Amino acid sequence: MSVNSDLQRERVAASLDSEDFALWWAGGAAELAERRALERRFYEDPELEESVHPSCLSYKERYEQTVARSTRFLAKLRQWQREKQPQLNLSVSLLRDFRLLLSGPLGTGLFQQSFPLRLHFSMFMTTLLSQGTEEQQAQWLNRAWHMDGVIGTYAQTELGHGTFVRGLETRADYDPERQEFVLNTPTQSSYKWWPGGLGNTANLIIVLAQLYVKGKHHGLQSFLVRIRDERTHEPLPGIDVGDIGPRMGGNGVNNGFLGLRDVRIPRNQMLMKNAQVLEDGTFIQGRPPLLIYGTMVYVRVITLRDVLFGLLQAATIATRYSVVRRQSPIEENQPEVSVLDHITQQAKILPQIARGVSYRLVSDWLWRFYEDVLKQLEANNPRNSLPELHALSCCLKAVGTDEATDGVDRLRKSCGGHGYLSSANFDSIHGMTTATYTYEGEYTVLLLQTARFLVRQYVDSLKRKVLPPSVTYLRDTTRLVWGKSLTANCARALEIAALEQVRQAWQSQSTHQRGKVSAQMASNLAGRQLTAAAVAHAHAFFTRNALGELERLRKTGISAGVSTVLGQLVELFVLDTFLRQSGSVLRWNSITGTQLRLVESRYEELLSKLRPNAVALVDGFDFHDRVLGSTLGCYDGRVYERLMEEARKNPLNQEPVNASFHSHLLPMMRGKL
Amino acid sequence: MSVNSDLQRERVAASLDSEDFALWWAGGAAELAERRALERRFYEDPELEESVHPSCLSYKERYEQTVARSTRFLAKLRQWQREKQPQLNLSVSLLRDFRLLLSGPLGTGLFQQSFPLRLHFSMFMTTLLSQGTEEQQAQWLNRAWHMDGVIGTYAQTELGHGTFVRGLETRADYDPERQEFVLNTPTQSSYKWWPGGLGNTANLIIVLAQLYVKGKHHGLQSFLVRIRDERTHEPLPGIDVGDIGPRMGGNGVNNGFLGLRDVRIPRNQMLMKNAQVLEDGTFIQGRPPLLIYGTMVYVRVITLRDVLFGLLQAATIATRYSVVRRQSPIEENQPEVSVLDHITQQAKILPQIARGVSYRLVSDWLWRFYEDVLKQLEANNPRNSLPELHALSCCLKAVGTDEATDGVDRLRKSCGGHGYLSSANFDSIHGMTTATYTYEGEYTVLLLQTARFLVRQYVDSLKRKVLPPSVTYLRDTTRLVWGKSLTANCARALEIAALEQVRQAWQSQSTHQRGKVSAQMASNLAGRQLTAAAVAHAHAFFTRNALGELERLRKTGISAGVSTVLGQLVELFVLDTFLRQSGSVLRWNSITGTQLRLVESRYEELLSKLRPNAVALVDGFDFHDRVLGSTLGCYDGRVYERLMEEARKNPLNQEPVNASFHSHLLPMMRGKL
Repeated sequence: MSVNSDLQRERVAASLDSEDFALWWAGGAAELAERRALERRFYEDPELEESVHPSCLSYKERYEQTVARSTRFLAKLRQWQREKQPQLNLSVSLLRDFRLLLSGPLGTGLFQQSFPLRLHFSMFMTTLLSQGTEEQQAQWLNRAWHMDGVIGTYAQTELGHGTFVRGLETRADYDPERQEFVLNTPTQSSYKWWPGGLGNTANLIIVLAQLYVKGKHHGLQSFLVRIRDERTHEPLPGIDVGDIGPRMGGNGVNNGFLGLRDVRIPRNQMLMKNAQVLEDGTFIQGRPPLLIYGTMVYVRVITLRDVLFGLLQAATIATRYSVVRRQSPIEENQPEVSVLDHITQQAKILPQIARGVSYRLVSDWLWRFYEDVLKQLEANNPRNSLPELHALSCCLKAVGTDEATDGVDRLRKSCGGHGYLSSANFDSIHGMTTATYTYEGEYTVLLLQTARFLVRQYVDSLKRKVLPPSVTYLRDTTRLVWGKSLTANCARALEIAALEQVRQAWQSQSTHQRGKVSAQMASNLAGRQLTAAAVAHAHAFFTRNALGELERLRKTGISAGVSTVLGQLVELFVLDTFLRQSGSVLRWNSITGTQLRLVESRYEELLSKLRPNAVALVDGFDFHDRVLGSTLGCYDGRVYERLMEEARKNPLNQEPVNASFHSHLLPMMRGKL
Repeated sequence: MSVNSDLQRERVAASLDSEDFALWWAGGAAELAERRALERRFYEDPELEESVHPSCLSYKERYEQTVARSTRFLAKLRQWQREKQPQLNLSVSLLRDFRLLLSGPLGTGLFQQSFPLRLHFSMFMTTLLSQGTEEQQAQWLNRAWHMDGVIGTYAQTELGHGTFVRGLETRADYDPERQEFVLNTPTQSSYKWWPGGLGNTANLIIVLAQLYVKGKHHGLQSFLVRIRDERTHEPLPGIDVGDIGPRMGGNGVNNGFLGLRDVRIPRNQMLMKNAQVLEDGTFIQGRPPLLIYGTMVYVRVITLRDVLFGLLQAATIATRYSVVRRQSPIEENQPEVSVLDHITQQAKILPQIARGVSYRLVSDWLWRFYEDVLKQLEANNPRNSLPELHALSCCLKAVGTDEATDGVDRLRKSCGGHGYLSSANFDSIHGMTTATYTYEGEYTVLLLQTARFLVRQYVDSLKRKVLPPSVTYLRDTTRLVWGKSLTANCARALEIAALEQVRQAWQSQSTHQRGKVSAQMASNLAGRQLTAAAVAHAHAFFTRNALGELERLRKTGISAGVSTVLGQLVELFVLDTFLRQSGSVLRWNSITGTQLRLVESRYEELLSKLRPNAVALVDGFDFHDRVLGSTLGCYDGRVYERLMEEARKNPLNQEPVNASFHSHLLPMMRGKL
């Protein structure tokens, strides 16, 4: 097939070598080659194709097609894993690598809205690993990997309880006579609600429940509960299970609900690595798991990676489409230009690419920091960096997912009407991205957690204590000195704004507390200031860290081409953040109109510098067409052809006259309705 | 059914009488009673119910159900119209009233994602009225109203052409020998694409095409083209027609594509009120239609009304849910509180209610201004206000739809995970709302139109010419004087920011033009400054006008209760706009930290004043449960019950074991895949 000539022209004219960029982006030649080989293996399999766009299917048909395709996908993927590592070692890191395949580019290319078996390998198996005893692991882990009679998921959230985990109502009462636990969801609001794969797919799941022994409460524990018969898949007695219904995105996940009524399980199906119930009902609390915090942090680190991936999918689609699409001449009596030639369009797209790439630098740093903290914890280092990591991962997850979702939506809108079509795939990318705003730590809740840390550090700084590296700026009370480097000015101005927001939050809390309210109520009343402080901290950190990582990368030796374009992108990201946060920046810094105009004109200069490399740059992310899943974003730019092809495949278009004409339209036109 | 006790408590404790508010909101007792009677008539009709949530249906099933229900709806609605007005007078105003029923609360309550027959009564019939000759109207109008063999739509946009209307490629060549027009879509990109109802429903449509007579181009004209056989509904020869496929919203609309290949229509099917082609091919250009601009303005005015309606639907759902939903205690060892008791939640919801209500005031004003301008035009007044109205309607539509869409999304997110469910209905409301960002004038394109007007007015102000009322502030170069009234300070600060943005845009354009580029290229390069100016103007106008309308309303006599709450809402809207625009406000005004803190603390005070009336207030919008269409937002607050009921209705949950278990999951678990 021929490539759209406008796109072709862009590629020829670019100064950036997209293959060069792709090598760096993938982490090396071997990594890039392996991914491409893996993608070929799956994307060329006709059984993994979709003949009809999932958005045309009913929810039930979609489920059935997803199950069919995902069982094939998993069989092939474990085959590939066997070839790569014949010796199976079921470790956390193997499961995490596997998770990256399931929900990274490969899995996305096959299942734009995910699939029901994903949680089996992530939450279900990792919880078995982290909370199961050795015997329990021996009994279940190998079976779980081979899905030998076992399809699992992890059931925590309830219909009426999410964020406040202590409020969960599901209970497990120990019956010492029969040495069994009896599980119940005693109220409507205690029904489990949300777990992926729970609806119609899983048969053996981990349930979080309040443990009671002889009426005494022993906190939340995890239980392994068979909910469907292994052979017939019928729900077992006392089990009320089903799918919770369609959502804004992730409609392949089969999220489910679960009611439990006097469901009995043997004593050895409580996961007992960290706490035990003996046969006679004696409860033994082990030491709290070392890494329970670590897992939460892990998920947040990985979420930042997920959303920058979604953001750059969307940016790739929008960039290619904006070259192919022509609209309105710039000069009178000239032809319509590529939309990307309008500076307003450049300002919609290029800063999003800059954001995605800068997030990538930060998320790589954050990953290394996470690994360092794990080592500190394993070495029992009491002065470990877990609180700092926790605070950082909260606000970066919150702000990163918010900004990425906003970016996906702006990019969709930049594609006008066609961006609104499901076949453009923005709706699916947006659905997946915006879910991250809420799950695994809701936006506002996470910001408040970071804010508490920041206020504590600020108070420490007043006491002249040593502060962790990411917040040392809280003690730097010098005002902004506008120097030669615009990025340095912007990054510093963002830090000052963050410091002042933290100070204001602290003051607001103190003022309220001097009134007649409790410390808790004072925090509630200062909520707007506290969340603003955490947001400002995140922006300050993102920009400072991206600049630092850029410098570090340049020292490790990257090609001149990649170095140049990365430099432009990080600079654009910093300037864009500064301008978008100008309300907070201007409030807390003295910045003149002339200085602002300098930033703006450099911003526009960067747009024009990046413009000629825009297509080469998004080519360099090396997204397979299947990963983009978009009529507007394919490598060959055959936008209008694909839009028509996709429309023609719609089942509604397979008959020239729909049945409803005879049943309703014709009678209506004859006045018979 | 019992009402949720938390909701009940809120209603009892409120100081606002929601029925009192509802009377004002509906425009009077008669209006309120009529709407309620109308709703009862339709919502109690079992044939207009949906047994399965549309999000569970396939795209084709959804179409079929929508056709079935919408034919019944229209039959009933015309019956109601006959009872009300036995004498049929097919005027523009009748069609507009009818349009309000089709897409206002009533139509929304029945068709959350609209339906295919809507454009028949709006664009199709109004175009017949405005562009058809008397004979053409005599031939078609009455038949169209009764849908006697006629289902119409209006086909303008093409696959490759939207905004730039002159670029449309569909052509109509006049053949004097046979006195026929020959219509063609000569390229892939000239396929008609988007018209509602075109896919499988319409049979006689209005097509916009470039007219050619003997090879000479005579601009765009409208043609009446039969595309499907009146009796069989088969597409006629030369017609390639179908549905364009699923979208982010409006999936009931049956948007279609259309290719034309040598399709012949008689000469009298060109709509010839404004231009004629005589039998011999002589082309006569009449005077351009008086109100063609007026219709565009009409659509923008009405769009502002549509989106504030969507915003308040979402706000009602979020408010009620935030009372029913309990999450996290505020005080230690106390029960979890209603989410709305967290100040961060109040800050997410109440400003959106304030925005929706303030938009309502502005849109009422805009409607009266629109009617004034129509009168000026009919009186041939050469100094008419059309340019001002045009500029205003562009930026208010752009900024209003953007802010409302953003608001719907924030409200959805404020409902956490449950807000993400399709049964919560935010996704549908968001889909309908965000579409307005693009259709009938794309956001950026509209802003640039307003900006051109503003720059022209600014230059006029330098020449000391008289400026239209909405832009007289462009000549007021006094600086901000911080007085006692916070709203006056904020509104003035927003005006100053707008003035300075306009000045900066003009300077940027001039600077670029002093370089070597054309005026057009200079405008392109100043695009960011121009759009920023239009946005700033819109915010300044929204706030100033809402304050003015509030004052006017209070003089016309509204009840004390309504007056108080309206005052709080408009004040909150002004302060919220000021704070959200603080980047632009602080850039162009000298405002101290103390002054900002005053605004913020008053903002928080308003939240706490409005909080006790939040439920009564949204009750006062008097949305029928069907209009909200949400498991989370119903009047009775039975949230968890409805979530479960809706989930249980899902066809996927009708069988205990899905077929894919036997075909795929079981073989996989036995290692046979």
